[in-house]
Amino acid sequence: MIVEPTLIIDEVKAKSNIKKMVMKAQKNGCEFRPHFKTHQSYAIGDWFRNEGVQGITVSSLKMAEYFSKKGWESITVAFPVNTLDKERIKRLTENIDLRVLVNNGTALNELDRFLNHPIGIYIELDPGYGRTGIPFNDIEKIRTIKVSVDSNPKFRFEGFYTHTGHSYKCRSKEEILDLITPVLEKLEKINSEFNSGICFGDTPSCSVLESFGVINQVSPGNFVFYDWTQYTIGSCSINEIAIAMQCPVVAKFETRNELLIHGGAVHFSKDFLFNDEKVPYYGVLAETKDDGWGNQIHGAVLKSVSQEHGIVSYPNELMDTINPGDIVTILPIHSCLTADSMAKYQTVNGQILDHMNKHIFD
Amino acid sequence: MIVEPTLIIDEVKAKSNIKKMVMKAQKNGCEFRPHFKTHQSYAIGDWFRNEGVQGITVSSLKMAEYFSKKGWESITVAFPVNTLDKERIKRLTENIDLRVLVNNGTALNELDRFLNHPIGIYIELDPGYGRTGIPFNDIEKIRTIKVSVDSNPKFRFEGFYTHTGHSYKCRSKEEILDLITPVLEKLEKINSEFNSGICFGDTPSCSVLESFGVINQVSPGNFVFYDWTQYTIGSCSINEIAIAMQCPVVAKFETRNELLIHGGAVHFSKDFLFNDEKVPYYGVLAETKDDGWGNQIHGAVLKSVSQEHGIVSYPNELMDTINPGDIVTILPIHSCLTADSMAKYQTVNGQILDHMNKHIFD
Repeated sequence: MIVEPTLIIDEVKAKSNIKKMVMKAQKNGCEFRPHFKTHQSYAIGDWFRNEGVQGITVSSLKMAEYFSKKGWESITVAFPVNTLDKERIKRLTENIDLRVLVNNGTALNELDRFLNHPIGIYIELDPGYGRTGIPFNDIEKIRTIKVSVDSNPKFRFEGFYTHTGHSYKCRSKEEILDLITPVLEKLEKINSEFNSGICFGDTPSCSVLESFGVINQVSPGNFVFYDWTQYTIGSCSINEIAIAMQCPVVAKFETRNELLIHGGAVHFSKDFLFNDEKVPYYGVLAETKDDGWGNQIHGAVLKSVSQEHGIVSYPNELMDTINPGDIVTILPIHSCLTADSMAKYQTVNGQILDHMNKHIFD
Repeated sequence: MIVEPTLIIDEVKAKSNIKKMVMKAQKNGCEFRPHFKTHQSYAIGDWFRNEGVQGITVSSLKMAEYFSKKGWESITVAFPVNTLDKERIKRLTENIDLRVLVNNGTALNELDRFLNHPIGIYIELDPGYGRTGIPFNDIEKIRTIKVSVDSNPKFRFEGFYTHTGHSYKCRSKEEILDLITPVLEKLEKINSEFNSGICFGDTPSCSVLESFGVINQVSPGNFVFYDWTQYTIGSCSINEIAIAMQCPVVAKFETRNELLIHGGAVHFSKDFLFNDEKVPYYGVLAETKDDGWGNQIHGAVLKSVSQEHGIVSYPNELMDTINPGDIVTILPIHSCLTADSMAKYQTVNGQILDHMNKHIFD
C-alpha cells in the first residue's frame, strides 16, 4: 500500500523495451552496450544480462566500479576521462575491460603516467551538440590523437564515440531523422578514413532509426523506462513508458482546481517541459490502477514542485472524484533524474528493486 | 584530495549562521524550531543542539522518524499531514512530541480514528503564497477547524503555521519587508482573536526582519548554509554562504570559453536562476582554495547541466589559468536540493558528515 511517494516500474513494459532494442541492434549488426545511468540497478541490469548483453556503458568511474562488482566485465565510462581519479581507474583496469573517452592528448599523457594495465580508448567526437568531443571537421586533431592511442601498448583503440544529445530538441520522428542524417554522413567519412568502431547512442535516435549506417555499437540508456520527454520528442508511444510515480494526495483546493501531493523536487527532480503556452510542467497524470496505470488524464499535470510539496493542476470536472488520502500516478518528465532522486523501485507486483544511490557507502 | 564532485561545508560560517539566528530568535522572545530539511544530518543537527535548540521542523514523517532516533523529542512535520502513513504517525506519537499541520477537517477525522496518543496540531494558513493553507480571510473555516482541535483530547493545539514562500521572488531587503509587513498585520488579527502560537519561517524573512511582531516561533532552514538564491534575494552576504561544490575539470574548449566539469544534475540538482538576459545559470564560480573558497570569479557560471556533465562558461582572459585536472569551486543555486542530491558533506578540514539519504535503508 502506497503511503509515500513511490516509484513504480512496469516490469513487462521495461523488459519489452529492452528486448526491442536488443533485437534492433542485432538486426543491424551492432554491438549493444546499453547505458546503465538511467536505472543504476543490479536487478534491472540482470534483465539486460538475460537478453545476452555483456558490455555496458555508465556515466562515472564510481558507477563502473559498482557494476564491475556484479560480474559486468566490459564497461565504457561515457564521460571525458577524469584522470584525477587514478586509484579507481587503476583498480578497474586490473579487473575488467574498462573503456574511457578522450577529448585531448593531455588525458592520454596522464593515463600513460600511471596505468599498469591496458585501457580501452574511444576518441570522442562532437556531432554538433556542442557539449564535449572533438568537432568532426578538426581532422588534424583527430588524427593526432589517434596516432597517440595507436602508438602506446597501454591503449587499445575501441573507436569513436559520439552523442547526439541535441536530438532532445526534436519534436517528431521526422525532425530526429533530419538531425541525424547529416551526422551519419559525417560518420561515414570518419569510417572511410579510419575503418574503426563507431559508438552512438541517444535514445531518440536509437528509437526511431531503422538502420544505423556505419555505426557498429549503440549505447542508449533512457529507453528502458522512456518518459514524458521521450514521448514528446517522438521516441516512443505513451504505452511504452515503463515508469511512474505514485503519490499521496494530502490536500485539495477546489477554488484553484489544485491538489497538494507529497511528491516534490527531491522525488521527481526539477526537470520540466514547456506546454504550448510556455508554462512549465513537471509531470503528467495517468489513471491510478492496482496493477500499473491507465490512460493519461488530460488536463492534469504537476504544475510546480518545492522540496517535498507538489502542486497538481486537476480538471475542474474531475475535482469531485479525488480526495486527500487518494493516490495519484504521475509519468515523470525525465526518468533518469527521477530514478536517481528516488534511488529505489517497486514493481507493479510489489517487488522492491535496488539502486546504486542507496546501495553503497563511499 | 578532490577526485570527484564533493560538497564542502565551511563549518565556521555555518555555525556562525546558526548562532546569529539563535540569538535573533532569543532577542525577539521566539522559540526557535529550525527546519532540518536543508541539511538532513545528525552531525549538523548537533551544531544546533549545542546552541540549545530542542524543538525542530522537518518536511516529512520519514525525516521526523530519522531525527527522533537521535534524541530529538519535539518535531514539527511542516507538511499537510499525510494520514495514509498511519503506522509511522502512531510510532512517533508514542515516542515524542510530534506536531503536524492540518488544512482541513478530514485530516483531523482520520487522525482521530487511529491515534492512541496525543498529537500536536498547527492549523496552516496561506499568507498569499498560494501553495497550501487556509486563506487568512476564510475565518469561518479557521474557527471551525480550531473548534475541532480544541474539543478533542487527542489533539493539542500548538498554534498557526504559515510559510511566506513567495519571499523567494524578492530581490532586496526592502522588497522582502514590503511583502512581509501585510502578512504580519494579518497575523496580528489572527492573534487578537485566538491568542495562540504563531509559527513562521522562510529564510529570507527571518534573515532580514529585526522584529517579529506577534510571531512567537520561527522555523527557517536554508540559512544554515544559505546559497546563491538567498544572496540574490537579499537574505545574506556572499561571505555567509557556507557551502560549495568542488568539481574536477575534465576538458577545456577554448574557442567557446567553456570548461567541461564532472558535476551535473545529479550533484547540483536542476535548479537555476535567470541572469539579466533571461539566460539560466546553475551555479556561480568562486576561487578555489585549500581551506575553503575565495571571492566570486566574475563572469564564470555553470551554464548547463546534463546528468553528470557540467558546462562552465569561463572568462576568456582566465582560460589560460585553468586546465583539465584542476578543481573548480561552485556556489550552489539552491543548497537544500544540492545537499539532498549529494547526500554527503566534507568540511573544509576534511571531516565527513552524514546525510539522511545515504544513512538509512527504508
